[in-house]
Amino acid sequence: MIPVNAYAAYQSKEPLKPYKFERRDPGPHDVQIDIHFCGVCHSDLHQVRDEWGGSKFPMVPGHEIVGKVISVGSSVKKFKAGDSVGVGCLVDSCRTCPSCGEGLEQYCENGSVGTYNSVEKDGVTVTQGGYSTQIVVNEDFVLKISPKLPLDKAAPLLCAGITTYSPLRHWKAGPGKKVAVMGLGGLGHMAVKLAAAMGAEVTVLSSSNKKKDDAHRLGAHNYAATSEQETFKKYNRSFDLIINTVSAPIDLGSHLQLLKRDGTMVLLGVPDKPEAIHAFPLIGGRRSLAGSLIGGIKETQEMLDFCAEHGITSDIELINIDKINESYERMLKGDVRYRFVIDIASLK
Amino acid sequence: MIPVNAYAAYQSKEPLKPYKFERRDPGPHDVQIDIHFCGVCHSDLHQVRDEWGGSKFPMVPGHEIVGKVISVGSSVKKFKAGDSVGVGCLVDSCRTCPSCGEGLEQYCENGSVGTYNSVEKDGVTVTQGGYSTQIVVNEDFVLKISPKLPLDKAAPLLCAGITTYSPLRHWKAGPGKKVAVMGLGGLGHMAVKLAAAMGAEVTVLSSSNKKKDDAHRLGAHNYAATSEQETFKKYNRSFDLIINTVSAPIDLGSHLQLLKRDGTMVLLGVPDKPEAIHAFPLIGGRRSLAGSLIGGIKETQEMLDFCAEHGITSDIELINIDKINESYERMLKGDVRYRFVIDIASLK
Repeated sequence: MIPVNAYAAYQSKEPLKPYKFERRDPGPHDVQIDIHFCGVCHSDLHQVRDEWGGSKFPMVPGHEIVGKVISVGSSVKKFKAGDSVGVGCLVDSCRTCPSCGEGLEQYCENGSVGTYNSVEKDGVTVTQGGYSTQIVVNEDFVLKISPKLPLDKAAPLLCAGITTYSPLRHWKAGPGKKVAVMGLGGLGHMAVKLAAAMGAEVTVLSSSNKKKDDAHRLGAHNYAATSEQETFKKYNRSFDLIINTVSAPIDLGSHLQLLKRDGTMVLLGVPDKPEAIHAFPLIGGRRSLAGSLIGGIKETQEMLDFCAEHGITSDIELINIDKINESYERMLKGDVRYRFVIDIASLK
Repeated sequence: MIPVNAYAAYQSKEPLKPYKFERRDPGPHDVQIDIHFCGVCHSDLHQVRDEWGGSKFPMVPGHEIVGKVISVGSSVKKFKAGDSVGVGCLVDSCRTCPSCGEGLEQYCENGSVGTYNSVEKDGVTVTQGGYSTQIVVNEDFVLKISPKLPLDKAAPLLCAGITTYSPLRHWKAGPGKKVAVMGLGGLGHMAVKLAAAMGAEVTVLSSSNKKKDDAHRLGAHNYAATSEQETFKKYNRSFDLIINTVSAPIDLGSHLQLLKRDGTMVLLGVPDKPEAIHAFPLIGGRRSLAGSLIGGIKETQEMLDFCAEHGITSDIELINIDKINESYERMLKGDVRYRFVIDIASLK
């Protein structure tokens, strides 16, 4: 077994504290990874605070993991020691259901295995995430990271990147398409960069005008504050696709009206409470309200390669692990541009 | 001007009473129609009771109109006296916007003109519907009805028929597709007949088991009561498409779970109150909640021709006009199988 240093939540809603545990020795198909950086995702906080229910403690969060391969199992051909690699939200799936067959492991019909707060296919082992010094992962769930990408800024691609890339591809963002991004945070700022790189016309819809300059710097063509009623007149029936990264309760109906006929709003954030939806904006324009969950392994690799090609990474604030609890509080206030990333050297 | 007999609501929430008014003389592009039958749609009741706001009184409801051509304007080529014809929910649109250009006049971006409770393009004349002896309609909004279709049973095709046909086509119901129909009323019973004729496997989801025999007679392959928890286990992730005709507030989340990955639930009914939607069922299966509004003129003709070819009509209860108020009360209780149709001879 491999001893690792980590930070864990010992109980729901408690601050994270130092924690030591052991990773399994690599099997024939495993990759042993020295973690260099791990991004801090809002869902880390949701799960640490047990806001979705069923959280398992002690919990080592973190699913935006990048690092270097230390060793590989005897059957592993794709990776070798020294390679730059990443691990995202998934570390296993059933591999036999139709969704797995189509490379959509995130929708595995028998339940995929999350990188932390999940149970391995052995039915016993609870997974632990990337706020730790090493991780051992089956080769099929390890991603290659191009040397063109700086590892610290690449970490958030493993969740925030793929979560926005996948719906942009699925709903065909590209030249001639008008895409709006609701909310300019960890997910939103990646959506802007990716949609712009795909060739779409990108509009940021943010609650205030505070992030206007940033939005343009990130690649947005237009910016509008949803606190201003004028926005809803000006952009009435304007967008083919709205990427909604806002997980706070808002008036979805007025935002749905900003879609063209046959347009789609995709929900990426999960609010604690149900959304109130009136049927009229959907019926009156044959509009859709959809949801999307991260992306499959194949598409995650495609996204990483796309980012390497286009020079896209996340805007980050690098922190040491002892600032993790403070970073959660700042994240709740939206006080981060745009993703905290833990320097795992501070755990070693 | 052409004097007509009708029944109208003189004020919101009052019973309908006899009413006399005049139709315009047919212009060069108009068709003058002797109305034989008019279906009774739930939206007649919503508008008579001003439940959607903005109702105009006196109001002659009715947009499931069938009859025979009396005369045509000098430029009309497609119709002649004696032809069987229909008029649905629309009598005009801007004809210049992208939606009109694509034959989707129901989504006219400058506002289509409803058959009643709407204002003509002259900005003055309030339209009046089919609970009347005659109607004069621009030829582009008149539909041909095959002599194969009995007129009384064909009337509901003009709204209930196209409202269900259009989403079934748009979301590609057909062989190999599993379609569920929520609610077996005026819309639902048409959805079952049409989806079965298109070759889909059809499952009716109804609140109780009361309509099971009827559902199978109408063409459904499966039937399940949503009052039974077992239904939600048995049909978990089963359907490509759910046609939701229920306008009462229900737990949409549990019904969305019955969709396969990438499946769509289409809302056709408009509830008075917003629906509460939790994002998880959408995100967890990349599912969509969409809406659809009647259909365009071209598609309505296609639907009528499809029904003639497949021998599809509505199951109706024929009433005289003096039973209209009673029929509204019975409709509210779901006490009709499956559509009231007014015999307009009783108005003459």
